[in-house]
Amino acid sequence: MVKLDKIYTRTGDKGQTRLSTGEQVDKWHPRVASYGCVDEVNAALGVAALHAEDEMLTAIRRIQNDLFDLGADLATPDRGRVLEWTPLRIVESQVKRLEEEIDAMNARIPPLDSFILPGGSPLAAQLHVARTLCRTAERKIAELSGMENEPVSPEALAFINRLSDWLFVAARAANSNGADDIKWVPGANR
Amino acid sequence: MVKLDKIYTRTGDKGQTRLSTGEQVDKWHPRVASYGCVDEVNAALGVAALHAEDEMLTAIRRIQNDLFDLGADLATPDRGRVLEWTPLRIVESQVKRLEEEIDAMNARIPPLDSFILPGGSPLAAQLHVARTLCRTAERKIAELSGMENEPVSPEALAFINRLSDWLFVAARAANSNGADDIKWVPGANR
Amino acid sequence: MVKLDKIYTRTGDKGQTRLSTGEQVDKWHPRVASYGCVDEVNAALGVAALHAEDEMLTAIRRIQNDLFDLGADLATPDRGRVLEWTPLRIVESQVKRLEEEIDAMNARIPPLDSFILPGGSPLAAQLHVARTLCRTAERKIAELSGMENEPVSPEALAFINRLSDWLFVAARAANSNGADDIKWVPGANR
Ligand code: B12
Ligand code: B12
Ligand code: B12
Ligand SMILES: C[C@H]1O[C@@H](n2cnc3c(N)ncnc32)[C@H](O)[C@@H]1O
Ligand SMILES: C[C@H]1O[C@@H](n2cnc3c(N)ncnc32)[C@H](O)[C@@H]1O
Ligand SMILES: C[C@H]1O[C@@H](n2cnc3c(N)ncnc32)[C@H](O)[C@@H]1O
Ligand SMILES: [Mg+2]
Ligand SMILES: [Mg+2]
Ligand SMILES: [Mg+2]
Repeated sequence: MVKLDKIYTRTGDKGQTRLSTGEQVDKWHPRVASYGCVDEVNAALGVAALHAEDEMLTAIRRIQNDLFDLGADLATPDRGRVLEWTPLRIVESQVKRLEEEIDAMNARIPPLDSFILPGGSPLAAQLHVARTLCRTAERKIAELSGMENEPVSPEALAFINRLSDWLFVAARAANSNGADDIKWVPGANR
Repeated sequence: MVKLDKIYTRTGDKGQTRLSTGEQVDKWHPRVASYGCVDEVNAALGVAALHAEDEMLTAIRRIQNDLFDLGADLATPDRGRVLEWTPLRIVESQVKRLEEEIDAMNARIPPLDSFILPGGSPLAAQLHVARTLCRTAERKIAELSGMENEPVSPEALAFINRLSDWLFVAARAANSNGADDIKWVPGANR
Repeated sequence: MVKLDKIYTRTGDKGQTRLSTGEQVDKWHPRVASYGCVDEVNAALGVAALHAEDEMLTAIRRIQNDLFDLGADLATPDRGRVLEWTPLRIVESQVKRLEEEIDAMNARIPPLDSFILPGGSPLAAQLHVARTLCRTAERKIAELSGMENEPVSPEALAFINRLSDWLFVAARAANSNGADDIKWVPGANR
């Protein structure tokens, strides 16, 4: 169980830290960056939540919780060794739930023939921020998964990929189901 | 024409994706990162727009539209091959318009003999956020342009460089033309 | 003394820039990225300040000022050559002040047996955003310090490491001293 009490330990002042397994790594290792980016997405969702209520708020809090499952997954590379505990991994049902919610929200939203300018309502604007950070996190996780000897569970990658699509559709939902979205007009200002 | 309907396709779950030309690339390729960072700037502008009105709002929406032109430019490397369509590129007039607006805003703002603490009014604070993300995007685009066989149009680089200066001056404008800016006092707290 | 008047100079349109020492570097050099990331943290604090008052506001403004000291430190690598001026460096007392404030705030906050979901009050939510960006800045600064011939002062690294812990504790303080924090429940949504 994670304990947070003293908070600062000074041990990381030279730039190294530890994974959940105890392995020492540089702070700039892509694995550390990957869960650091997930933490950024999570913080952006904390801001979005300020503007959310009802089912949307419930969904955001659930996703924030899932993102810690994702962080735990990333912080615990499967090196084929037996650990003292069962590592927590993202499971398919967490990805599936995102897909079902995307389908439900999207059913009420007209399709687009251009990109939309991020923004609109305060909630939509903040969901777009979370969306772009989610895509940045995805790039880091994908990079990690492409490295040798750096296992990443396929569900972790699927989850972060689907989450950015969830955030896009949720942002449209938060703009009167897309009615208030402003479309990109290619080359309009030349 | 871009179509957005189903939104998730699951095809990117292994970490690869496509440019507008159809070329397959890793998601962590600097080119993908470069337009991903532009998307982050765009999202930050969507938040800034929540606090803007009149000409400032109009300018922000125009710049958001321009950023999709920039994204299209970056997503379509000029490989010397003929495409089926005319690629959309940032043009000099888009950079020029930023410069003219900087000059106009700056004329009303006193010069500085130190940096200013980012913040102030809600609009100014959010424009500073957009400014710093714009500079991060610039670093990625510059990195891409420094790679071999990774063409970036000079106007794209000039646009993102000028945009961060536009955002700085606009932030000062949003702080009573600089009157409310707090200056950095080097080494004040030692 | 720093002068900001014309703002745009067009000289960086090809992707190179200068450190405070006059050395020319690529814009994507980790040193430039490191102070660019510090600038991002500073902008996030500018947003947090919108929701802060009294001692919290004072502390945020002081830290913003310190972050420019940090930026100056990073922008001025100690190459063993004598400069025309005394370079500004982060000093131990700036780190110490953070530690004392963490101890004071933390004394009023119950310890945790799990992570907390970033968010809560507007101030707490924005402090979590600043916290995650601070950790991203730390990764960049640590990376720089791990490169050959790229000196980083130990106090600079200690300062950014401690700052993220300060921001965590301050965020808890801003959630009724932790009473309103929502804890992560591992694997709750599977
Ligand atoms: C990875 C990590 C992070 C990541 C990702 C976490 C995530 N899950 O998303 C991120 C970057 C978000 C993070 C952030 C922070 N972290 Co951190 N983090 C860790 C680390 C390395 C692993 C935590 C983890 O996720 N473990 C995996 C989970 C599933 O494990 P678990 O909860 O323990 O549960 C499993 C097992 O323990 C077991 N189990 C559970 N209960 C029990 C009980 C018994 C008896 C047994 C046998 C087994 C068992 O089964 C579980 C299921 O698999 C720990 C250090 C460490 N090695 O534990 C530090 C650590 C907890 N973090 C720390 C700190 C300070 C922080 C931050 C405050 C830093 C900051 N300034 O931002 C924040 C707080 C964030 C927040 N919102 O609360 C400190 C706490 C110091 C202290 N004592 O006060 C630690 C200890 C690191 C350190 N030494 O400095 N962290
Ligand atoms: C690059 C890109 C992005 C970038 C940058 C885009 C930009 N311009 O800034 C970013 C990262 C922002 C992005 C974001 C998203 N994207 Co995207 N993106 C693309 C991509 C690869 C190219 C789009 C592009 O910019 N093309 C350049 C422009 C100029 O082209 P154009 O509008 O088609 O117009 C030119 C030509 O087509 C031609 N033309 C125009 N009309 C016509 C008509 C005819 C008949 C002809 C012959 C020619 C023609 O002339 C134009 C002028 O040059 C496409 C896939 C693809 N290959 O098209 C996916 C794609 C459109 N994106 C997709 C998705 C899902 C998204 C996101 C929702 C992802 C997310 N979760 O965040 C967001 C939405 C963002 C938003 N705010 O709306 C999906 C849509 C799937 C679907 N059908 O629903 C696609 C198809 C990728 C995929 N296969 O999954 N995207
Ligand atoms: C590093 C840097 C940054 C960094 C970090 C700064 C930091 N400290 O955190 C960041 C990324 C934040 C930054 C941002 C910006 N910057 Co800048 N920055 C610089 C740079 C390279 C060094 C500044 C610095 O920190 N110096 C260290 C400090 C301590 O030095 P100092 O204040 O001069 O004081 C020392 C000495 O000068 C001496 N001293 C002080 N006074 C005197 C007087 C005399 C007579 C003497 C002999 C000595 C002396 O002692 C001091 C103590 O050590 C300068 C260019 C340069 N080479 O100066 C550009 C520069 C100041 N920046 C510039 C610009 C445009 C910006 C931005 C507006 C860019 C943008 N669009 O975002 C922002 C503004 C940010 C803000 N909030 O105000 C331009 C200004 C152009 C102009 N004339 O208008 C410059 C000149 C670069 C350029 N050529 O384009 N910047
Ligand atoms: C919508 C378009 O965005 C690009 N794309 C796919 N995943 C990411 C990501 N994580 N970050 C940035 N861009 C991405 C692809 O080019 C896709 O077609
Ligand atoms: C103001 C100062 O910021 C630095 N600089 C220039 N461009 C960038 C960027 N994209 N990101 C971060 N720093 C930058 C240079 O050192 C310049 O002098
Ligand atoms: C709390 C946990 O976060 C990780 N850690 C330490 N420093 C950073 C950073 N700058 N960015 C991301 N993660 C970090 C370590 O694994 C630590 O144990
Ligand atoms: Mg995707
Ligand atoms: Mg510039
Ligand atoms: Mg730390």
